[in-house]
Amino acid sequence: MSVLSNVRRFVFPVIAVAAAGTVGAMLLGAADDERAAKFDNKGALIRPEGYRKWVFIGCPVTPNDMNNGKAAFPEFHHVYIDPKSFAHYEKTGQFPEGTVIVKELANVAAKESPSGAGYFPGDFVLLAVAVKSAKRFPNEPGNWGYFNFGEYPNYAETAEALPTDSCNGCHQAGAQQDYVFTQFYPVLRAAHQGRPAEHPEHHHHGEHGEHHGGEKQ
Amino acid sequence: MSVLSNVRRFVFPVIAVAAAGTVGAMLLGAADDERAAKFDNKGALIRPEGYRKWVFIGCPVTPNDMNNGKAAFPEFHHVYIDPKSFAHYEKTGQFPEGTVIVKELANVAAKESPSGAGYFPGDFVLLAVAVKSAKRFPNEPGNWGYFNFGEYPNYAETAEALPTDSCNGCHQAGAQQDYVFTQFYPVLRAAHQGRPAEHPEHHHHGEHGEHHGGEKQ
Repeated sequence: MSVLSNVRRFVFPVIAVAAAGTVGAMLLGAADDERAAKFDNKGALIRPEGYRKWVFIGCPVTPNDMNNGKAAFPEFHHVYIDPKSFAHYEKTGQFPEGTVIVKELANVAAKESPSGAGYFPGDFVLLAVAVKSAKRFPNEPGNWGYFNFGEYPNYAETAEALPTDSCNGCHQAGAQQDYVFTQFYPVLRAAHQGRPAEHPEHHHHGEHGEHHGGEKQ
Repeated sequence: MSVLSNVRRFVFPVIAVAAAGTVGAMLLGAADDERAAKFDNKGALIRPEGYRKWVFIGCPVTPNDMNNGKAAFPEFHHVYIDPKSFAHYEKTGQFPEGTVIVKELANVAAKESPSGAGYFPGDFVLLAVAVKSAKRFPNEPGNWGYFNFGEYPNYAETAEALPTDSCNGCHQAGAQQDYVFTQFYPVLRAAHQGRPAEHPEHHHHGEHGEHHGGEKQ
């Protein structure tokens, strides 16, 4: 048996594992550096990209015809959370620093279809975003900043934080957890059900892993 | 310089690249082979996993109180498409072989919140799935098979295809494209807007890439 042959037998598997580890670390590293909320150098929020591929959490509808034609947010609310913060929420039941929640509105296209009467979504209307950041919004309730990117299809490239009153009034009055309307977001509730939502410091790793018995999805 | 040292200098980078390539190919291979619809050996559909992280496409609501207490599908429809088929739809405006569309229902938790009157989702109710497969459903309209996994939280592990009449009646009567209610799914319409939906053979690659001017997301 030659020296080369011996070296091969030793070197191949070691290097293959090392190289695989490096590739894995590069992939993880890229994901970890990716913040869903990006701000320009004047502190305005840059419109998030790709949010329609984020995790959808729920869809309240507040139609104009149920609000004397003056709904605050007609009509359908497509509400999303960025995937990294969703993964954190699955594990801890908490919204981490940097959480981005997107609310894209769609109007009502119809009130009848072959499957019955109801409200059926049509076209996009408006894009609004909330970002949780103790660093940027130290004095806002829950450290949430709220942003409005205007009307579809002419969403603004950037948006400045809105005054606290304009959004937080409703969130403070009615939202179940940390100024988020989790009572209307079954996807979030299912993701942390059976897990301690209020006291992450009491979190037992073994008890509340990624897959637990109560969750069917 | 020893033979080993020479071997190292030659072998290390080559193997590192080869190993990285292999890992990359394995990752790509896994993604490419991953069909969203999996069937058991009796031909029953295995309940899809992870669909709450798929691409949400729209959320009609057909409340019982708008249907004399007898809505066919109360209440909120959380409708998703598997990510691979969504990517195909973005490019071509067509649903490819193997498309999986999930409809998870959520009941109505409230009709009032600080933001106004409306319908607000509560808990999950039922899981239904449609799979497009010419191979498995050669005689069904559009090659769609329909499945019902029953009631939350006791979704079945597998489901057999339902008789054509039980689902296709509504889809045939009212769905805008290929038995899918695309008129109620703004996310799908935005994904292929400005692209040729009906004649993929006329598709010009350069004109209709991943990012085009008309789409704001």
